[in-house]
Amino acid sequence: MFTSFRALPTLSRLPDLPGPITRLLPRLIEPLGGVGLVRRALSRKAINRLAYATTLRPRPLSMLSDYTSWRSLTDRSYSGRHLPPATPEFMDALPAQSDVLPLFRREQEIRATDTSVMFVFFAQWFVDSFLSTDREDLRKNHSNHDIDLCEIYGKRIEQTNLLRSGHGGRLKSQVIEGDEYPAFLFEPREPGGPLVFKAEFEGLHDEEFITQRILGDAPDDRKDSFFAVGLEHGNSTIGSTIMNIVWVREHNRLADMLAAEHPGWEDDQLFETARNIAIVLLVRIVVEEYIKHIAPFDFPVEAVPFIADGQRWNRMNWSAIEFNLLYRWHSLVPDAIGEGPEQLSSTEFRNNNPLVLSTGIEALMKRCSHEPAGKIGLLNTPYFLTERFQGDQPSIEERTIALSRGARLQSFNRYREAYGLEHLESFEALTSDTDLSERLERLYGHIDNLEWYVGIFAEDYPDYMMMGELITTMVANDAFTQALTNPLLARHVFTADTFSEAGMRVITETVSLEQIVARNSTSPDAVRVSFKC
Amino acid sequence: MFTSFRALPTLSRLPDLPGPITRLLPRLIEPLGGVGLVRRALSRKAINRLAYATTLRPRPLSMLSDYTSWRSLTDRSYSGRHLPPATPEFMDALPAQSDVLPLFRREQEIRATDTSVMFVFFAQWFVDSFLSTDREDLRKNHSNHDIDLCEIYGKRIEQTNLLRSGHGGRLKSQVIEGDEYPAFLFEPREPGGPLVFKAEFEGLHDEEFITQRILGDAPDDRKDSFFAVGLEHGNSTIGSTIMNIVWVREHNRLADMLAAEHPGWEDDQLFETARNIAIVLLVRIVVEEYIKHIAPFDFPVEAVPFIADGQRWNRMNWSAIEFNLLYRWHSLVPDAIGEGPEQLSSTEFRNNNPLVLSTGIEALMKRCSHEPAGKIGLLNTPYFLTERFQGDQPSIEERTIALSRGARLQSFNRYREAYGLEHLESFEALTSDTDLSERLERLYGHIDNLEWYVGIFAEDYPDYMMMGELITTMVANDAFTQALTNPLLARHVFTADTFSEAGMRVITETVSLEQIVARNSTSPDAVRVSFKC
Repeated sequence: MFTSFRALPTLSRLPDLPGPITRLLPRLIEPLGGVGLVRRALSRKAINRLAYATTLRPRPLSMLSDYTSWRSLTDRSYSGRHLPPATPEFMDALPAQSDVLPLFRREQEIRATDTSVMFVFFAQWFVDSFLSTDREDLRKNHSNHDIDLCEIYGKRIEQTNLLRSGHGGRLKSQVIEGDEYPAFLFEPREPGGPLVFKAEFEGLHDEEFITQRILGDAPDDRKDSFFAVGLEHGNSTIGSTIMNIVWVREHNRLADMLAAEHPGWEDDQLFETARNIAIVLLVRIVVEEYIKHIAPFDFPVEAVPFIADGQRWNRMNWSAIEFNLLYRWHSLVPDAIGEGPEQLSSTEFRNNNPLVLSTGIEALMKRCSHEPAGKIGLLNTPYFLTERFQGDQPSIEERTIALSRGARLQSFNRYREAYGLEHLESFEALTSDTDLSERLERLYGHIDNLEWYVGIFAEDYPDYMMMGELITTMVANDAFTQALTNPLLARHVFTADTFSEAGMRVITETVSLEQIVARNSTSPDAVRVSFKC
Repeated sequence: MFTSFRALPTLSRLPDLPGPITRLLPRLIEPLGGVGLVRRALSRKAINRLAYATTLRPRPLSMLSDYTSWRSLTDRSYSGRHLPPATPEFMDALPAQSDVLPLFRREQEIRATDTSVMFVFFAQWFVDSFLSTDREDLRKNHSNHDIDLCEIYGKRIEQTNLLRSGHGGRLKSQVIEGDEYPAFLFEPREPGGPLVFKAEFEGLHDEEFITQRILGDAPDDRKDSFFAVGLEHGNSTIGSTIMNIVWVREHNRLADMLAAEHPGWEDDQLFETARNIAIVLLVRIVVEEYIKHIAPFDFPVEAVPFIADGQRWNRMNWSAIEFNLLYRWHSLVPDAIGEGPEQLSSTEFRNNNPLVLSTGIEALMKRCSHEPAGKIGLLNTPYFLTERFQGDQPSIEERTIALSRGARLQSFNRYREAYGLEHLESFEALTSDTDLSERLERLYGHIDNLEWYVGIFAEDYPDYMMMGELITTMVANDAFTQALTNPLLARHVFTADTFSEAGMRVITETVSLEQIVARNSTSPDAVRVSFKC
């Protein structure tokens, strides 16, 4: 991944390598993963290079105010920000938001070269845990700023307690036709009847928000199988539902394993230790499978043990507004999954737990692992994220553009400089798509006026990457400096005392999401999970 | 201070230097403070040596539970802990708590050689801000774990808002006979009438706790001048009252200064910027005047700019139970302040704002700066902290011993080892006071059975120190790694953008508490403030 950034300082952009080289390089790079010490050394170098790409936390400003205050330095309910706000002059010169939306609207669907829909679903499920924008005050983020698997545990202790079974360290679950699933959230009801939280889940989430807003436009027969999980949006796509099922199963498997090894442990210790293990498994999957896929050439990056221990970038996590925005990978979402009679339209892969229950997670994950995602870039956001439905409410993409404007982000070029990348001199340097570069030039006039949220998606990139240079650098910077700082990875915490001996073995042995799915499946041979299609 | 610890590794304890040397050394060491680069280099070395004396945060355990959990790693409402709990065998072998109390009871008052009562009052006021033990659950600490001047700003934003005047960035205050004081908390009343919070301070503190518990046994005529400040205990001694007066005056002076320099700034920005400056002034005073006095030979330690920036000890603050306990310097408190008709007994220096108002802070601080404190050690806690009053409630010292037992701390020797100090082989090695060492031996049997809370105060020390070797190491370790990590001192925050140019000048020019008192006094020439008597 990483050599491409700084080892080629004299090139103004990432090179378009000749086809044979781009095909050959991965074959040269991938085997490095098999050579432990080489992989570790290169990973360490790459992680640190990206972690030090820009200034470090703590940063003087948050979204709270335009000047530094004790609250801007300590109150993490407000999103952080990497750079101070743009000048009023810069903001005033921007085109109307209504003229920006068409830059995102999908004209002709473009698929990614090797990214699967499985990647998309994992990304959405994963990101929902640390980017949880307040519905009323967009400057705020409700998350704990850590990878904490709140998707299945909830964000607050009160939620966690409602989700726990209270015995054996397990989470509440149910068995349907021999397979384990999270518990249902609602009381059984007559078709079309009112949705009521089970008493045992009272207070888990905002009841009105879930029944009216999230399930507002869902077909009635899909509502009863809504699972009780950690986040309000945990059932919004089949992908999120599948991931929650996988991790609830894994948590309960770990709890059972610990109970067998430690018959004297009570529910609390079994639960907490299983959670410790599960969180570290997730961090490992995120770095070694998910970030690996994002990296150029799928460089086999390793979650180097204790790498954060000696680093200046190891500072308190604080998700920035830029991280929140750059993760809006709407263009990854295809119009539909598959072809023919089995094709799933967007309305079928949203709010559709009955599909998951009837098809099974193995078959769906296999299908999603073969299906290419959309390609990240402009002109490729699907219609249901750009167009207005539901009483003319702004679309998701419109709301995102508005959020980036509200955050008064500095220009694309300013961010390139802040991340050590060279200043671009023209729209032609941004993208070789001349239609697009001319369109952007007409809209913004000068490359220095280009707004960041458009620029990061306009930047074109060779096939061995999955997004542009700036967005790759920024996502890697925030990801590495906030995933590898997880307290469970710290030197005096990452021990058998924290995970148990059995837990340490599980952590060592687990290298892929596919493994986790398979060991919790009643049909392990049918399991195929891949972020690369 | 610091050379004494590790530069003498072959000595089993700190040396009793011959009188002429101990008198000469300070004269050799103190001038180093005048030599900027030498002072900085030595300070850096000393700070890092102490900061790395033991394992670093994050630590696996907190007071929440005896095993590691996501909450034990993230929920800072529970005190942290340096070492895991002692074994049941160790706890069972300890003497009865009632046999331990007499080890603390003052038999004959012993005064410190050069520590003033001013130091004592500053220490109490300072420590109350980050060690705020929950009244119901002693495992919990309500503080923000940072030096944030919550003594005058409160711990929560709701409190801060009640304490602000709402204009000019100022805190609420009043002028009495030409001098500025915080506002009174209670409505005016008839003598003996009920105490009622002013409407403007509703919700500032627990009303019943303040009127019934804190002021429960105070003479009625002292209650009306209770000031509205950030902490419930902010009026409990004349020292805390004086310090709050000083810092409210300084905050308002800074706000006025900023308002004059930045006529366009609104109340919020003036307030927040004044607060930024005031917090950094406090950190500077703490390191360069307060910790300096604690250090052997009053080594002129400097708050080295950005020292935390490159260090592995720069991790999220988390006050440990050991820090909470080792700071119980009850023996510093003298039976009385002064002699003759002006003498202040303990009932006079507690809950006595009328004394502060009638005498003025300048005269009281001068008196307290000349008056020697008690000497830190066993057999020197004043009677009002060891004996029972108020319906046979346990005394402060009894509660402290019980807290240390509840925390199940490992032995004194274990802590010495954990901080890189050699294991002591006998009670004679602990203290040259043979009466005391024999008494301890009778009580504990073996030096390895000695409990930590007794051991740290039993350890004797030469005149050039103000407490034993282990407690000095531990307090310095926690102090440096949590004061110098203050976000306002971080590289990208400690700038004129954060403090204003005028604020930067104030920070540079302020080197002593005396300066701060004098510049806010109507009789600056009468000001004398010193931690050394």
